[in-house]
Amino acid sequence: MAENDTRKVTIAAIADLAGVSVPTVSRVLNGRSDVASQTRERVEELLTRHGYRRRPSAARTSSGLLDLVFPDLDSPWAVEIIRGVEDVAHAAGIGTVVTAIHRRNSSARQWLDSLRTRATEGVIFVTSMVEPPLQAELRRLNIPVVLVDADGIPQQDAPTVGATNWAGGLAATEYLIRLGHRRIGFITGLPQLMCSRARMDGYRAAMESAGLPIDDDLIHQGDFYHESGFTGGTRLLRLPDPPTAIFASCDQMALGVYEAVRQQGLRVADDVSVVGFDDLPEVRWSSPPMTTVRQPLAEMGMVAARTVLRLARGEHVESPRVELATELVVRDSAGPPRVR
Amino acid sequence: MAENDTRKVTIAAIADLAGVSVPTVSRVLNGRSDVASQTRERVEELLTRHGYRRRPSAARTSSGLLDLVFPDLDSPWAVEIIRGVEDVAHAAGIGTVVTAIHRRNSSARQWLDSLRTRATEGVIFVTSMVEPPLQAELRRLNIPVVLVDADGIPQQDAPTVGATNWAGGLAATEYLIRLGHRRIGFITGLPQLMCSRARMDGYRAAMESAGLPIDDDLIHQGDFYHESGFTGGTRLLRLPDPPTAIFASCDQMALGVYEAVRQQGLRVADDVSVVGFDDLPEVRWSSPPMTTVRQPLAEMGMVAARTVLRLARGEHVESPRVELATELVVRDSAGPPRVR
Repeated sequence: MAENDTRKVTIAAIADLAGVSVPTVSRVLNGRSDVASQTRERVEELLTRHGYRRRPSAARTSSGLLDLVFPDLDSPWAVEIIRGVEDVAHAAGIGTVVTAIHRRNSSARQWLDSLRTRATEGVIFVTSMVEPPLQAELRRLNIPVVLVDADGIPQQDAPTVGATNWAGGLAATEYLIRLGHRRIGFITGLPQLMCSRARMDGYRAAMESAGLPIDDDLIHQGDFYHESGFTGGTRLLRLPDPPTAIFASCDQMALGVYEAVRQQGLRVADDVSVVGFDDLPEVRWSSPPMTTVRQPLAEMGMVAARTVLRLARGEHVESPRVELATELVVRDSAGPPRVR
Repeated sequence: MAENDTRKVTIAAIADLAGVSVPTVSRVLNGRSDVASQTRERVEELLTRHGYRRRPSAARTSSGLLDLVFPDLDSPWAVEIIRGVEDVAHAAGIGTVVTAIHRRNSSARQWLDSLRTRATEGVIFVTSMVEPPLQAELRRLNIPVVLVDADGIPQQDAPTVGATNWAGGLAATEYLIRLGHRRIGFITGLPQLMCSRARMDGYRAAMESAGLPIDDDLIHQGDFYHESGFTGGTRLLRLPDPPTAIFASCDQMALGVYEAVRQQGLRVADDVSVVGFDDLPEVRWSSPPMTTVRQPLAEMGMVAARTVLRLARGEHVESPRVELATELVVRDSAGPPRVR
């Protein structure tokens, strides 16, 4: 058998090469746990080397489960995504297994081992950063993968559901400009994430389209956490010529700006307009209720669940990346600039 | 066989009575789906009538899964409980299946059907109100059940993990009294839930211990939602002799009080002290950061997960109800009363 002849390699041929039985190769292909690990490794190495084409997922029996994997469950928007995924899965009679792998390889490995004993229709990762060995292993196990990509990093390997971060940054900034603001502060997210870049580019595009100068002093580098919104807001408000409005590229940082405004003895909306990004459930209840860019997290979870279930049925997915629309939600945290 | 002789009834006897084979009775006992529904009903009826004692759960093979069932996933504290349960389950190599049954019988039924095909170590319900037919069915399937009881209604049927609601109400009110407050408003939760009653009784106990009168005008009936905190806060602040502090029996209502204070042109802490109950992650980021009674939701999830896994191993659980301690978390929303 030529090493490059990938069209015709059969399970029987792999079994011969590995010196094991055909059922043993089948067990490896089906991710069963009752195979000695040395044997598994030898068989998988041969399957990969000879480019064995696994049968489409449609042929697998339904496990009745899909896996939703978070780096951590401490994110305020995790429950929104769980809600969307569970809604679609439940309607399809599928259970949603939620796992936090805490960015630890040992934890991811343990989760992966559990898939060998209980099987899964497919996996949704809520991160754009899935370790390559993990991706490779899931491919070997023939398990479909979809990413909910809150980070905005395009992926080649798996279908991805994201949001229109650039358009959201544009809409928020245009809204503040329409209210009459000219000096608009901006607090960025983590610079290494593409969603941060996209939101800032939207801000810049709106400023430039309106013929407004972009003052680097008005741009503060944040990291998506509350503290950086507070620090950035405080710095911006103490400038000799402070902004009349601040757009923070996530709600948590916008709440930090609220606190900076309060500690400067000022009032949100009356003295300084604040706009966030995400529309977490709790910002309806901030005081004042927050004007923000809605990222449709539950809907992103729903689309991801539908996509992974289609892949599990062996269906083709048209587009490797889908971006759902963001939307400006106007509440009470932004108004016309105060004349000082 | 006497109908009341429950000690010796065997599977063989049930099979005889039902006119089916012993393996068929076993399949019913194991909750397998490959039994005609008429047969299942007849066998289950006989098992119940003759009081057949199922073998302990330890004898079941491990499914590698436990089920965490919410009425809805729209609660801001759902993710805290998921985090606690997942943490313990993951460490035990068990996957956490999260389900929202939306208080619909059809949805609960669909979830229950899925258990027949995929099995579960046990079920954690995040509610004190589990429909009796659902409880009965899980008992028939020999599936251990634990309740995370955020509502505070004592249950006879299943081990329950709650929090010390009365002690939390007492601690918050005593703290406000120590700060010098004498007129302290209170916003209740849903009156039909025992946790609402327990928190209010804690408030009353603190007031009475300090020799302070309880003015019914200062008690507003809320429902745990933001809007009722806003309405209640507004009413209390408009009283001829308004309270100098308001204790709301959940954080979401306390955020409603924040907004009421703002709309009255006042400031939280400086003009009116506000204390909440729950310590949701986001109230660290309210403005000002909220002083509140911490309900250890993640820990409650952890204890529930440990308990259900012990039951699944056939272990005995000592206490049918465990209440974890609440704790006052002092931040910046309460201070000494303002002299008016």
